[in-house]
Amino acid sequence: MNPDRIRVAILGATGYTGSELVRLLTPHPGVDLVAVTSESRAGEPFSAVHPSFRGIEDRALVTVADLEDMDLDLMFLALPHRVSMEFVRDHGLQRCRIIDLSGDFRLPSAEMYEAWYGTPHVASEFLGEAVFGLPELNRTAIAGARLVANPGCYPTSAILALAPLLERNQVSPEGIVIDSKSGVTGAGATAGEGTHFPRVFGNFSAYGLLGHRHTPEIEHVLGLVAGEEIDLLFTPHLLPVDRGILTTAYARPRPGVDAESVTAALHEAYADEPFVRVCPTPPGIKDVRGSNYCDVFATCDPRTDRVVTVSVIDNLVKGAAGQAVQNLNIMFDWPETTGLNQGPVNP
Amino acid sequence: MNPDRIRVAILGATGYTGSELVRLLTPHPGVDLVAVTSESRAGEPFSAVHPSFRGIEDRALVTVADLEDMDLDLMFLALPHRVSMEFVRDHGLQRCRIIDLSGDFRLPSAEMYEAWYGTPHVASEFLGEAVFGLPELNRTAIAGARLVANPGCYPTSAILALAPLLERNQVSPEGIVIDSKSGVTGAGATAGEGTHFPRVFGNFSAYGLLGHRHTPEIEHVLGLVAGEEIDLLFTPHLLPVDRGILTTAYARPRPGVDAESVTAALHEAYADEPFVRVCPTPPGIKDVRGSNYCDVFATCDPRTDRVVTVSVIDNLVKGAAGQAVQNLNIMFDWPETTGLNQGPVNP
Amino acid sequence: MNPDRIRVAILGATGYTGSELVRLLTPHPGVDLVAVTSESRAGEPFSAVHPSFRGIEDRALVTVADLEDMDLDLMFLALPHRVSMEFVRDHGLQRCRIIDLSGDFRLPSAEMYEAWYGTPHVASEFLGEAVFGLPELNRTAIAGARLVANPGCYPTSAILALAPLLERNQVSPEGIVIDSKSGVTGAGATAGEGTHFPRVFGNFSAYGLLGHRHTPEIEHVLGLVAGEEIDLLFTPHLLPVDRGILTTAYARPRPGVDAESVTAALHEAYADEPFVRVCPTPPGIKDVRGSNYCDVFATCDPRTDRVVTVSVIDNLVKGAAGQAVQNLNIMFDWPETTGLNQGPVNP
Amino acid sequence: MNPDRIRVAILGATGYTGSELVRLLTPHPGVDLVAVTSESRAGEPFSAVHPSFRGIEDRALVTVADLEDMDLDLMFLALPHRVSMEFVRDHGLQRCRIIDLSGDFRLPSAEMYEAWYGTPHVASEFLGEAVFGLPELNRTAIAGARLVANPGCYPTSAILALAPLLERNQVSPEGIVIDSKSGVTGAGATAGEGTHFPRVFGNFSAYGLLGHRHTPEIEHVLGLVAGEEIDLLFTPHLLPVDRGILTTAYARPRPGVDAESVTAALHEAYADEPFVRVCPTPPGIKDVRGSNYCDVFATCDPRTDRVVTVSVIDNLVKGAAGQAVQNLNIMFDWPETTGLNQGPVNP
Repeated sequence: MNPDRIRVAILGATGYTGSELVRLLTPHPGVDLVAVTSESRAGEPFSAVHPSFRGIEDRALVTVADLEDMDLDLMFLALPHRVSMEFVRDHGLQRCRIIDLSGDFRLPSAEMYEAWYGTPHVASEFLGEAVFGLPELNRTAIAGARLVANPGCYPTSAILALAPLLERNQVSPEGIVIDSKSGVTGAGATAGEGTHFPRVFGNFSAYGLLGHRHTPEIEHVLGLVAGEEIDLLFTPHLLPVDRGILTTAYARPRPGVDAESVTAALHEAYADEPFVRVCPTPPGIKDVRGSNYCDVFATCDPRTDRVVTVSVIDNLVKGAAGQAVQNLNIMFDWPETTGLNQGPVNP
Repeated sequence: MNPDRIRVAILGATGYTGSELVRLLTPHPGVDLVAVTSESRAGEPFSAVHPSFRGIEDRALVTVADLEDMDLDLMFLALPHRVSMEFVRDHGLQRCRIIDLSGDFRLPSAEMYEAWYGTPHVASEFLGEAVFGLPELNRTAIAGARLVANPGCYPTSAILALAPLLERNQVSPEGIVIDSKSGVTGAGATAGEGTHFPRVFGNFSAYGLLGHRHTPEIEHVLGLVAGEEIDLLFTPHLLPVDRGILTTAYARPRPGVDAESVTAALHEAYADEPFVRVCPTPPGIKDVRGSNYCDVFATCDPRTDRVVTVSVIDNLVKGAAGQAVQNLNIMFDWPETTGLNQGPVNP
Repeated sequence: MNPDRIRVAILGATGYTGSELVRLLTPHPGVDLVAVTSESRAGEPFSAVHPSFRGIEDRALVTVADLEDMDLDLMFLALPHRVSMEFVRDHGLQRCRIIDLSGDFRLPSAEMYEAWYGTPHVASEFLGEAVFGLPELNRTAIAGARLVANPGCYPTSAILALAPLLERNQVSPEGIVIDSKSGVTGAGATAGEGTHFPRVFGNFSAYGLLGHRHTPEIEHVLGLVAGEEIDLLFTPHLLPVDRGILTTAYARPRPGVDAESVTAALHEAYADEPFVRVCPTPPGIKDVRGSNYCDVFATCDPRTDRVVTVSVIDNLVKGAAGQAVQNLNIMFDWPETTGLNQGPVNP
Repeated sequence: MNPDRIRVAILGATGYTGSELVRLLTPHPGVDLVAVTSESRAGEPFSAVHPSFRGIEDRALVTVADLEDMDLDLMFLALPHRVSMEFVRDHGLQRCRIIDLSGDFRLPSAEMYEAWYGTPHVASEFLGEAVFGLPELNRTAIAGARLVANPGCYPTSAILALAPLLERNQVSPEGIVIDSKSGVTGAGATAGEGTHFPRVFGNFSAYGLLGHRHTPEIEHVLGLVAGEEIDLLFTPHLLPVDRGILTTAYARPRPGVDAESVTAALHEAYADEPFVRVCPTPPGIKDVRGSNYCDVFATCDPRTDRVVTVSVIDNLVKGAAGQAVQNLNIMFDWPETTGLNQGPVNP
């Protein structure tokens, strides 16, 4: 399936995921963006909600109901979790393919979802069909999927660093610790006390200890790679920057493993990947700002017998909208980098 | 002159202007980037100097001497001032067209240059031929130029706000005050005491009072527009951000001028401009981050009888490399937006 | 009047002005802080609202009604404007002296207040008695005042730079332009869309053009100093930092004025002032962070015939709570620096 | 030993440790600061090097040689490592007591020093006498010490979180992981490529993996507490802020340990400590900015069987100069909080 152009809608325009999708899709040569929805701001221009887009994307926002008669090839759901699964439950997958950027279809079972999200899953009949949209692991399944669950931002950074090492039996699945640090856009576009500028500026703190919802997503995907169940500890922190995630992960090496072998494992895994760069020194989040790259680094400390990995992404690009576009390219059999050739904005 | 593709070299790779040119030219469909020079890092990959470009631009840096036998259509001089004019003096304009991003060819006379730059001009015979590369004012001359003097960052922001008002006789050329605020990349890529992170973080200060080199550039160009000599006061400040300039300018309105008329003047001037957006409210620097836009706003205060303008650019794009690419597009008769369709990276 | 210790209450604990007062008063040797009020959080410890104060100030917040039977020498009103004047209207000045940190008693007439604040003044009978609490101008009146109107943050920075020049007839009161830049704490502690971290980070913008409420405050006070009415243009901007204001002001010099004479005027005015430092080069906001200093600089440009001043304060200290404590020291005849000897926190 | 006042010199004025000592000692009621040295800037006022101190500390800097005839009770060595030990070797401890803020006397043996610092120890005869200056562990020894080795910033944050748990046998000394994040002042006052503002702003990165010099300091001190040798993995990261360290540490709980027991251990250890606050939720670095507090938090995850601690300090205060003043207070038998009663500057 490789049409010249496809017709696409974005559901949910007020959040950062929605605006970042518009940023990336506007210059995409294969996509006709036919509608962008917002229930609360319908009728207003997209650029009234996101003034940076003035003159770039001024179309009027519509409601989901307005999509009814449109001919669509794909929908991006840039909706809050719960709202996404309600939409899928109500509309199904007959009409067009869906890439969901919420957390609603990332976990394998309704039980696990309910345990971590604290709310029942209302469209569990679609969980079996949903494909976890991490191209580096699931490219073939994504190509044929009707429903792609776009990965979480933290999971993308953690899985891309650890999966090659678990897959190649370089590290033990026991006792993994993942210490992540994210920019504030990860908390969404809605203002609140915790994201008030004077509180975050010059500050740095941990949050969501022991119970963050991305924990089971990382555990499940890495468990599949390792071939056994994994319990890992995940600690997110809030960085006083707008974009970017850096994840430092710690694992026990298997006997014989050293810095060279873990580096070689990453190189082997990602030799042909257009968006993963294996680095000789630990990368910084600004190395990937605005781009779809994930930069990864690994080493091994013989003194303490530990493997350490460092990985960085732009949480809004490879951690959300960019990865979604990469999935779209795969689903429509275009070169994976189509529309994603913007280099990092650094400095 | 509209070849399918041209051959281009960038002279000077270690600075931010050089790296930003590479960022913008890499996806440009009409440009073959055949060489990037650095005398101090020749032989190393470009990405060794700028690690964000790993996998994007890994070519080895060459020296200027290495360019000797290359067939080139255009050179970007991303060199320090003085070095640029020495290069032009030594190599002339016979070989290929030049866009100079330094300050060496922006002023109309060697005397003025010496007065503000404190050093003699060594290639004054080329000053007459140099075209000031602000497309919104000089498009026709740029199209045929052999030597384009790419405007300074502060001047770009100030001139685009004030020129339409002076040209339409909305404001007096007497007593203009320009209060500008720039991100730290404007100070260049070389580390120094004044750009040490702990000194700039959480700080804000004025610098270069009364004597900044961009003063005569703004005065000269606005003087041409106004049709009379202008003395204006320009005060730059250092913002604790990486990219962006915001310029607030103050001028005396002519009789009968009001907020509507100054806004109308901007709309009239920029109706067909692809990169200037007239805003209904004062813009912020993040509205244009990473893009080639200049956003402008104007109003008039009847109470104090003052016109106030606010304009923003990304100093590395519309203030430097992006404008240079826009000039290249004009020089080779391509659509002006070629390679510049990346929207603002916001948030 | 110089008692060993006085009994003080702070009305309004949830804002930044309230918490900064607590920070400064805790180590003050002459002050017994007997109560801190909050209607919305009464009963909770102060440190539950401001966790940095854990172990420092854990007392339970009370309501204004709870103050009824307390013996008090002074109240700080750290309340929103309108609420302050309602309190004064209802409780009068019989009971104890008041320092009001809102804008309610800074302007000379109910008409001017209504014009700029858009709401009627409900306690205009106290306007005549209120003393504008800028020690450098009003020390004697403050000493005997029952009601001190603590100056606004922007006005403090602007008046301290310009008053000595107007008073000494160094500059004309005509055509003054004040371009100010403030950190985000100036916008208060309540989270909103405009102070959402991802919006402000890496950004810079102007706001409140032509109509900011501090305009008439500056005009009125400088008009008194100049001995004639002044209309000046004031433009505030939002800096992506937490604390600090830098004000750049532009004025026309009188004949014979030069850089030396304006500098001498500042030195003369502030020779004995404990909290104003005249600087040989333009100061930055971090030079005064956390302290009660105002650093000022002035120069004169013969080329364009302009005087330029640069002044900086910490908006929460000299721009609010610190100045209030300085006023308290004057009112109770203590050394003016009592409790204010904390140097700038830099870097 | 409790004199009313003592005579103190600071050796090394150009760095941040030196300037922070001056900030804290200026209002200290028991200290006469009689000299501040700088070999490179001798003769200049201290405030010429640190302009924030204008009017606060303008004394001329002297050389170390100038100290010869001065009567001194204590010297702070705010010198680079190597320079400190050379000074102690050359001058001994006969003359006055010394608090050394470098890393030269923190490790127990010349061998360990050489292994991690890559240079021989030249004053190893003093290592036995040096007392590790962490008051919460070593108060008695500090009181009588002639030479105090002031702890490193990272070690202070890590040890204060973990020592109570190791001491009370709540966690295993095996397999501890310490993931720390520091503001840029930790890298010192000397400008370099790695601390150039445009490189650090909006960025975040790991550095010094596996080999940071604070590793053996943490291991040694925690080993003493645990009563057995410890090998732990320490990973520092560079935060884009000026001040502050947050350390997240991971350890294996002993059987029966839970969130309550680790919290209780902290409360028990720090019940009487003036500068350690045990927090019910994870603290942020701004909770302690500018103050001598260390805020600590601990919890235990039964799911993954891990203890997690989070601790924060201001690296220049509790991580350097503030702790040094606390040590001075102990050495001269003053209340430990003397001169350190400044609350956190937040926001």
